[in-house]
Amino acid sequence: MSGPTTIVLASQQIAAGLTSPTECVRRCLAQIDAHEERLHCWVSVDRQGAMQVAKRLDDEVTQNRIRGPLHGIPVGIKDIIDVAGMPTLAGSTLRAGHAAKRDAPLVARLRAAGAIILGKTVTTEFACFDPAPTRNPWNILHTPGGSSSGSAAAVAAGMCLGAIGTQTGGSITRPASYCGIAGCKPTFDLVDVTGVVPISKHLDHPGPLARCVADLRMMLEVLADVVLPCGELRAGPRIGLVESYFLEQADAEVTAAVRAAVATLREAGATIESVQLPRSFAELHAMHKTIMAVDAARHHKPWFPTRRDEYGPNIAALLDEGLSTSKDQYREALAHQQQFKQDLGELLRPFDALLTPATVTPAPASLETTGDPSFNSPWSHAGVPTVSFPCALSSQQLPIALQWVGAAGTDAHLLSVAEWCEEQIGFDQSPCLEK
Amino acid sequence: MSGPTTIVLASQQIAAGLTSPTECVRRCLAQIDAHEERLHCWVSVDRQGAMQVAKRLDDEVTQNRIRGPLHGIPVGIKDIIDVAGMPTLAGSTLRAGHAAKRDAPLVARLRAAGAIILGKTVTTEFACFDPAPTRNPWNILHTPGGSSSGSAAAVAAGMCLGAIGTQTGGSITRPASYCGIAGCKPTFDLVDVTGVVPISKHLDHPGPLARCVADLRMMLEVLADVVLPCGELRAGPRIGLVESYFLEQADAEVTAAVRAAVATLREAGATIESVQLPRSFAELHAMHKTIMAVDAARHHKPWFPTRRDEYGPNIAALLDEGLSTSKDQYREALAHQQQFKQDLGELLRPFDALLTPATVTPAPASLETTGDPSFNSPWSHAGVPTVSFPCALSSQQLPIALQWVGAAGTDAHLLSVAEWCEEQIGFDQSPCLEK
Repeated sequence: MSGPTTIVLASQQIAAGLTSPTECVRRCLAQIDAHEERLHCWVSVDRQGAMQVAKRLDDEVTQNRIRGPLHGIPVGIKDIIDVAGMPTLAGSTLRAGHAAKRDAPLVARLRAAGAIILGKTVTTEFACFDPAPTRNPWNILHTPGGSSSGSAAAVAAGMCLGAIGTQTGGSITRPASYCGIAGCKPTFDLVDVTGVVPISKHLDHPGPLARCVADLRMMLEVLADVVLPCGELRAGPRIGLVESYFLEQADAEVTAAVRAAVATLREAGATIESVQLPRSFAELHAMHKTIMAVDAARHHKPWFPTRRDEYGPNIAALLDEGLSTSKDQYREALAHQQQFKQDLGELLRPFDALLTPATVTPAPASLETTGDPSFNSPWSHAGVPTVSFPCALSSQQLPIALQWVGAAGTDAHLLSVAEWCEEQIGFDQSPCLEK
Repeated sequence: MSGPTTIVLASQQIAAGLTSPTECVRRCLAQIDAHEERLHCWVSVDRQGAMQVAKRLDDEVTQNRIRGPLHGIPVGIKDIIDVAGMPTLAGSTLRAGHAAKRDAPLVARLRAAGAIILGKTVTTEFACFDPAPTRNPWNILHTPGGSSSGSAAAVAAGMCLGAIGTQTGGSITRPASYCGIAGCKPTFDLVDVTGVVPISKHLDHPGPLARCVADLRMMLEVLADVVLPCGELRAGPRIGLVESYFLEQADAEVTAAVRAAVATLREAGATIESVQLPRSFAELHAMHKTIMAVDAARHHKPWFPTRRDEYGPNIAALLDEGLSTSKDQYREALAHQQQFKQDLGELLRPFDALLTPATVTPAPASLETTGDPSFNSPWSHAGVPTVSFPCALSSQQLPIALQWVGAAGTDAHLLSVAEWCEEQIGFDQSPCLEK
């Protein structure tokens, strides 16, 4: 693959006439042609539509008209998000034939900013835990993670410059990390969930996946229709390293990669100290699952009891759990969510960000699982923003990533901190794609 | 009025057997008997029910059983919040005869913690801007503020030790400040709004009103079912003083009171520096009103068109505005809300809290208005927590209050900062109630 691989570079080159929207789309389609058969990232690719839009955007560039920051940037949309005229299958036979009448607002914003919607990327069934056919571009015997499997693998394979995912537990950070790209789960409610097939109204977060943190910022500004200024960091950032649970649970290679990153960042001027998790963390995973299960079961109530055989085993188990959860248990879980938000607010106050490994291990060598979301669901539960980016390769040549956690509503600052750290760490590798 | 006037003291004395729940209720009922005719704080008082519960709580104390932190504390509930068996009139004829089947969760939590629900306090019509009959205990020719008019005036007059209000614009902070008591608008979504007549799902916040910040903490822990630890302040707090807009708009006496408080706090060790409001503040009040108007109009759609004559002029104007607002304008307002949340997150990062005057003026000498919410609605829009408490009296012997603003999810810390400041300022005056 030649040409710019980041949105930052591509948009600069498009504006300068060094490349064009059609060129960008052509390069992405070439990657799809070369690798889709092995990687299965896409539910549908709108070749014709994308080229038509790209040509219009080419003309606009020659007329010095730039629609917005993503003018000419090809993106993929996770197939639980409505794109006008395309079905939103959500990885399920239940929704066959259902074509979206209009763009989800977040898709409309991407278009208005000049992005080219290349197609719909593969999601696990209803964005839950039953693996989809997507393979990891670094090694096709390993899971790409989920549920935003196609979005992550497509970006990693250069099939699009950015993609949209959603996270309820770990569905942005995990696949992004397994596939060696960057991901951002914004503050809860920052990106409108209208037109997104829901799991839980208390936990669902749409967000961007891309090749670097600067790209995430560009995409998030468009998705949320906000300005996220690239603030100057006064000095080296103050970082709280979450050793308990996270560095205890992570495997040896992940732990070593985090320790090496910490050393690099300290040398570059960051202040990094160990923090203790609040007591409410102990019950977190159970409480998060309760909310997710009950909310999902409510949403699927019209179909699940009568069409149970069309559900995969993992989502069926989740829905069963939701149906058998009492109101009191649900209320307790929602109260826990508020307590954890408070506790995390306190924990984060003196820090610019918390640092954890993004995943417990690199991508597992299995296609029967999408991997373990337990390092990501705490932040989905709390609704605080996270940014992740790769920092190293494992001995098996699989990416290992860092996860940065900020206070609610400080997405702009968290992106600045992560970008500074990304620059110090300087990881820049792409999967070597077989032909 | 004799006996403890704060929840902190009353609960200590109840636990120690120095006073009793029935004693507390009796003192409150005596205040109601003496002053309700002039002040009009209550829609209904459940004398018998309150005394029955109090006696049971007395017995439990003698058996060394304490239900929770509010054991034996008489509280008032704003009459837009469901209390089982009592109608929720919401200040409107439209809801006559409507008796609540069950307690709103926040009321159930108060009861479970041992609070005694004394009755329903007066609200303006649907918690909007049409004045209710309540008078200001400091001077009955002045408004008590709104919309939590009865809650604020009842606490100020010693008719209950704490009360529950709700804020969509400035409906907790404004009446609390005009009536010379403390108020807390928690982080958005920290307190469950189930069973509360809505104005806007994007803006409504239930919260406590009481005599001091420590009381607010005790109540909020119960309302939200969270632990809000009384953290140690490392040194003097770092405070951002919002001079632009707030100190420009405030009247001379309010400004002087804020300047005096700043001097006192600096002497006590606080670091106070001036902060600039973000650019998004310029459109804030218009955007906040758009969200409030559209959401209120949606809620009232089943009644407003056919029963318009039963609505007061101010709420009717709000609903008309909501009905004539376009979808694009609404979307723009919601996007603005997200932008302001981000901008405020950035502004707040280096500070423990922001400081503003709580209101533009002391309580206006009018019963035709509930006063100006413009110093409070920014924080309702942003969903960040605020705490207010009185700091001085005006030349007309009306309270002037300070408003403290914290980052989302840091209610516990904001309460600690406010409590520290309250201690330094040491304002402790009650209205001299005529008989």
